[in-house]
Amino acid sequence: MKVAKFGGTSLANAEQIKKVCSIIRADQDRRLIVVSAPGKRCKDDTKVTDLLIRYAERYLETGEASAEKQEIFGRYQEIARELQLPCEVVAQIEAELDEVLSNRKMLAADRFMDAVKAAGEDTCAKVVAHYLRSLGEDARYINPEAAGMLVTDEVGNAHVLPEAYEKLSALRSKSGITVFPGFFGFTEAGDLVTFSRGGSDITGSILAAAVKADVYENFTDVDSVYVVNPNLIERPVEVKEITYREMRELSYSGFGVFHEEALSPAYQADIPVCIKNTNNPSAPGTMIVSEPPVSTKRVSGIASDSGFCSIYVSKYLMNKEIGFGRKLLQILEEESLSYEHTPSGIDNISVILRERDLTADKEQRIVERIQNELQVDDVTVTHGLALVMIVGEGMRQSVGTTARAATALAAAKINLEMINQGSSEVSMMFGVKAEEADRAVIALYQEFFGCESEEQEAFARHSSSVMV
Amino acid sequence: MKVAKFGGTSLANAEQIKKVCSIIRADQDRRLIVVSAPGKRCKDDTKVTDLLIRYAERYLETGEASAEKQEIFGRYQEIARELQLPCEVVAQIEAELDEVLSNRKMLAADRFMDAVKAAGEDTCAKVVAHYLRSLGEDARYINPEAAGMLVTDEVGNAHVLPEAYEKLSALRSKSGITVFPGFFGFTEAGDLVTFSRGGSDITGSILAAAVKADVYENFTDVDSVYVVNPNLIERPVEVKEITYREMRELSYSGFGVFHEEALSPAYQADIPVCIKNTNNPSAPGTMIVSEPPVSTKRVSGIASDSGFCSIYVSKYLMNKEIGFGRKLLQILEEESLSYEHTPSGIDNISVILRERDLTADKEQRIVERIQNELQVDDVTVTHGLALVMIVGEGMRQSVGTTARAATALAAAKINLEMINQGSSEVSMMFGVKAEEADRAVIALYQEFFGCESEEQEAFARHSSSVMV
Repeated sequence: MKVAKFGGTSLANAEQIKKVCSIIRADQDRRLIVVSAPGKRCKDDTKVTDLLIRYAERYLETGEASAEKQEIFGRYQEIARELQLPCEVVAQIEAELDEVLSNRKMLAADRFMDAVKAAGEDTCAKVVAHYLRSLGEDARYINPEAAGMLVTDEVGNAHVLPEAYEKLSALRSKSGITVFPGFFGFTEAGDLVTFSRGGSDITGSILAAAVKADVYENFTDVDSVYVVNPNLIERPVEVKEITYREMRELSYSGFGVFHEEALSPAYQADIPVCIKNTNNPSAPGTMIVSEPPVSTKRVSGIASDSGFCSIYVSKYLMNKEIGFGRKLLQILEEESLSYEHTPSGIDNISVILRERDLTADKEQRIVERIQNELQVDDVTVTHGLALVMIVGEGMRQSVGTTARAATALAAAKINLEMINQGSSEVSMMFGVKAEEADRAVIALYQEFFGCESEEQEAFARHSSSVMV
Repeated sequence: MKVAKFGGTSLANAEQIKKVCSIIRADQDRRLIVVSAPGKRCKDDTKVTDLLIRYAERYLETGEASAEKQEIFGRYQEIARELQLPCEVVAQIEAELDEVLSNRKMLAADRFMDAVKAAGEDTCAKVVAHYLRSLGEDARYINPEAAGMLVTDEVGNAHVLPEAYEKLSALRSKSGITVFPGFFGFTEAGDLVTFSRGGSDITGSILAAAVKADVYENFTDVDSVYVVNPNLIERPVEVKEITYREMRELSYSGFGVFHEEALSPAYQADIPVCIKNTNNPSAPGTMIVSEPPVSTKRVSGIASDSGFCSIYVSKYLMNKEIGFGRKLLQILEEESLSYEHTPSGIDNISVILRERDLTADKEQRIVERIQNELQVDDVTVTHGLALVMIVGEGMRQSVGTTARAATALAAAKINLEMINQGSSEVSMMFGVKAEEADRAVIALYQEFFGCESEEQEAFARHSSSVMV
C-alpha cells in the first residue's frame, strides 16, 4: 500500500487534477490519497488557501465578504465544470462549502478561521473522489473526524495525538481508493483544528505511518529535490537519495520542498518517502530513507535561511560561574522564546534565535533582565543574520570539508559571523550577514558540486520559489 | 609606583633571590613586591609548596612528619646561609614557621593545610625583606591580614572581597619597599585561606589594582610570552604586546604563563601588566594592555588544552521544544558541573566540559537523568577531547582566517570534532582528539607564524613546561 500526497500546484486546476488521477490509477497500490487545496495556476495567481484566509479575515471584520466567497466558489466551479462532474454532485459540494463559510455564529474567531482554511483541502478531496468515481474507480472521500485524525487543541498549529495512529490504521483495510483532505484534524471534543501552514505533508506522513505504507509518495512540481535552491543555481544537481536526518537539516534551513514537521511520523515508523513530480511522474524522484548508502562521504545539500538574530552576552570569568548559561536560557524560556544555537567563547555566549520570535518589546525586556539579573559586562543584539548549512552523512569523518567550505567562502569575500560544527554528524553551519547568504550558497555549491554539472551558472532568478 | 611579583623559579635559591633584589633595587618605583614560595632549583627538584603539602598530608595522617619538616627547614636554612642573614633573624623566621607547622590542634584539617601551604610564601617574603634590609634598603615584610587582604571563606580557593581594595590602597603611601607574601588572605573572621594554586599572581594583581600601580610587573623565567607553547616549537615568535582579552583566552586554553584568575583585578582597574624574565631583566618582556594597536588584524597566539569530554544528546524536533536546553543545563547545574561550550545542530546538542569534573558516578547519573527526564533519542559521552584555540584581536573581521586554519589542519590530516566560532571576537576554537592536539597546534603555528622565524622546527621536547 502506498500513501500518495499531492500538493497545491498538482491540484491547481482541472488539467492538473486529471494528471493526479491518472497517476493514482497507474498504480493500484496507491490507495490512500492526501490532497492539498488548489494552489497557483500561474505565477501571479492566488492559492485557494489564501483566498479562504482573505475571506475569513474580511468576514470577521465586516460580517460580509461575498466577493471573496464568490472567487472561491469560482475556482471550484471552474474545476468541476472542466472535470464534467454531475450537477447534483457540484451542488452538494457547494452547499457543504457554503455551510462552513457561513457558520460564524457558533465559533470563536480563531476556530472560524481554522474551519474556513480547512475547507480548501476538504472540498478538494471531495472533488477528487468524485472525479475518480466518474472514471469508474471505487473511490471515496473520508472525513478526518470519522477516520480518527485526533489532534491537540492548538488552533492553527495542531499536533497529532498518539491514539490517532491506532484509529487511522483501519484505513489500511478499506477497499478501493480513499481520498483524505490534508492539513487538519479534530480534537477529542470534536473541534476542527489545522496543522501549521503546509500541513498536508504532515497528514500524509501520519497516514503513511498509521497504515504502515510501503512508501509515502509526496507529489509536487519538481522532478526531485535539488542539492541547492534552484532559484540560485540554474539546473542544479538532483538528489537521488537522502536520509531523513539530512532532509530534516535541509528543511530547517530553508529547503521548502518538504514541511519541516512532516518527516517525523514517517521517520519514526521508518516509512521511506519519495518526492515525485506530478508533471513528470516517470522521473524517479528523490528517496528519503533511514540509512545512507554504504561508505558515503559526501555533501548532500546546501541551504540557507535568513531572519536570524543574535543576543551576545559577555561577562569576565563567565565560565567559572556555574549556572550562568542556564539562567540566561531561563530568561528566554520565561519569554516563551525558543533559541537555535548558543556559540560561546570563554567569557561570552551568543544566543541565535529567529528574528520573528523576538518582538521589539521582548527584546527590550530580555536585554534589561540580562543586564540586571545576570550582572553582565555587555549585552548586544544583532539583527540580519542568515545561517548557511552544508548537509551530508559522513561529512564529519571527512577531513577537509571545513577547509574547502571556509576557503570557498573566503574566496568569495564572505566573512563568517559564526561557525557551528561538532554536534550534528550530518551538518555544518555558517552564520553570515543576511545580504551575503545567497553568494555564500552559490560559492559553496560551486565548490562541492561545480564539477558535476558544467552548464549551470550562478544567477539570482527573481521568480517565486519552488516551495510546495 | 610599580607592583613587582616574582614567581617560584625566581626565588628558588639564594642566587635567584639576589637577582630578584637587584631587580627591585634597580628601579625605585618597584616599591610593592609580591613573592611566591621558592620553586624548583633544577628540573627534578621539588617546589617548597609541594614539600609543605607533603608535610601537612603526612602530619594529618600520622601526627608526625619530622623528616618532611626538616626538608622544608633545610631549604630556607640554605637560602638564609647563602644570603648571610643574621642568626637571630634566621632563628626568628624559623620559630614563626615552626609555629605554623605545629599549630594542628586549633584548626580543622583543611584550614591546617591552607595555613601550612601559605607558610611557603610567608616565610619567603620575610627572607626577602630581611635580605633587602641587609643591603641597606628601607624594606619590610607585611602580613596580609594587617594589610587588609580580605577574602571569601573558600578554603584553597579564596576570592578577594571588594572591601579589600580600599584597605590595601593604604600600601601606596608606605615609604620604602613593602614585601607582601602571595597566595593567601584572611577572612573577616580572621582565618587564613589560600587562593587557588599559583595564586601569587592573583595577589600581585589585586595589589596593583588597589594601589593604582603604573604597571604590574610579573617576573618569571621566560623573556616573554610566546605565541605558542615553546615545548612544541623551538624558539617561537615572542609576543611584544597583547590585550587582556587575548591573554585571558590563551590562559584558559593551557597558556601557563599567567594564572587564569589573576588578570581580572588588573583588567578591571586598567593596570598594564608586564611579563618579564628575572634572569634577563633587560629584555622588554610582554605587555598586556587593554586596547590593541590600531588596525590590528593578526593572530596573537595559539594554545591548546586537553582533558575535555562531550555529552552528545539528540532528540527529533529538539529545536521546537522550548526549554530543552535549559533543562539539560539544569541537570548539570544540579550536579555542580560547569560546562564550557554547547555546540548544537537542529536536533542535537553537545555539552563540552572538563573531564576532571565529570566523575564516573556523576557521568552515570547524568546520562540516566537525561534519558529519563528529557526523553531523548540518544545520549553519548565521548572522552579524550582537546580544544585548540587561535586568539587575536580583529581576527573576526579578517575574511579567511578560518579558511587558513581549517586548510592547515586538513593538510595535517587532523579531523575537526568541533568548531566554535562566533561569540568571541578574539578567538576561534577547534575541538580535536587529544592525541592530535600537539600536531594541530604545530600546523597552525606553521600557517600563521611560519614565515616570521625560519629557524624553528616543529618538535616535541619532553622537558617540563615553562609554567610559573
